[in-house]
Amino acid sequence: MLDGAVVGTLATVTPDGAPWVVPMLYARVDDVIILHGSTGAGALREVRNGAPAALSVIMLDGIVVADNLFNHSANYRSAVVHGTVHDVTDDVYALEAFSDVLVPGRSGEVRDMTRKERAATATCALTVDRWTVKVRDAPPSRPDTPEGWAGVVPLRTVTDAPIPADWIEGDTPVPDSVQKLVAEGASYLHAPQSAWR
Amino acid sequence: MLDGAVVGTLATVTPDGAPWVVPMLYARVDDVIILHGSTGAGALREVRNGAPAALSVIMLDGIVVADNLFNHSANYRSAVVHGTVHDVTDDVYALEAFSDVLVPGRSGEVRDMTRKERAATATCALTVDRWTVKVRDAPPSRPDTPEGWAGVVPLRTVTDAPIPADWIEGDTPVPDSVQKLVAEGASYLHAPQSAWR
Repeated sequence: MLDGAVVGTLATVTPDGAPWVVPMLYARVDDVIILHGSTGAGALREVRNGAPAALSVIMLDGIVVADNLFNHSANYRSAVVHGTVHDVTDDVYALEAFSDVLVPGRSGEVRDMTRKERAATATCALTVDRWTVKVRDAPPSRPDTPEGWAGVVPLRTVTDAPIPADWIEGDTPVPDSVQKLVAEGASYLHAPQSAWR
Repeated sequence: MLDGAVVGTLATVTPDGAPWVVPMLYARVDDVIILHGSTGAGALREVRNGAPAALSVIMLDGIVVADNLFNHSANYRSAVVHGTVHDVTDDVYALEAFSDVLVPGRSGEVRDMTRKERAATATCALTVDRWTVKVRDAPPSRPDTPEGWAGVVPLRTVTDAPIPADWIEGDTPVPDSVQKLVAEGASYLHAPQSAWR
């Protein structure tokens, strides 16, 4: 479930008991969730210091259209993971894994990280203590007395052609990893095909 | 910003001080955010009883590919809204507005809600006390010494053909609102076009 998205909401609690939520890139690698932010980011620092943490991830798969107001809904997949956060000792391994989740195969195409880059990176891992997964993947509920059309409008994420940064010469080859990502339409973001379709 | 998505993460705090997050449909209507869930849902009940609430919304607009591991990132839009939740007295108005956010124009095509349906619905509104909006909408950072291709792979949400529920006869006309939603590719989910593209 976690592999179907790359952004989520990191949640913790402020010292005075209020909810504290920040959007964040993440990547599941083996049994942990790698979080990546600047060393100064407040909520990330809080959870690195031991505050309880949760990560919420939602993927919207369709708009559920009923023949009445009451049964309109959405098809979605979601995961909420509770756990504790610790610093990653092998930050190069974690960052390589991180970029390979965003762009599969990318880490093998680029130079090694510099000492300076490594020092500026706060890479943490959320261990998974408990989790909740929810899925709605179905047509609308059937009313007692159907009154017209009802069904689902499926939603899907697609990629557009890659846009080179403005300092890139026109004849610079697009890396294999990026060509593959675009050709497959960022396939890791695709919803699984439902049996009911 | 909030109108670019229909799902978010509602966050509050458990009585013993842990983060409590649940994915949820929402709709901004005028100055409030309508939340819609079953009357029994735990976190929604908690915030209706006065617990502090936040809603986090994230839209992923692109994968940022750098020529080095350090600068890989994502383009995104996000909003975090803090506020308090109260029950909506005019739940029919709120639910009509809610379905019109999911499927613009839908409320005018369906019958009125029944008394039973109204009783089973917990419609709440989150007032906006304070908020944080973040946007990354740019190419990768330019390194001191560029070493090959760098750029952005844009992501976009599209609609597929509507799938009728299995009890719908083949000749049942697809409602105008659904045809428009599909023709426009759920245009409310589209990212604004960036000047740098």
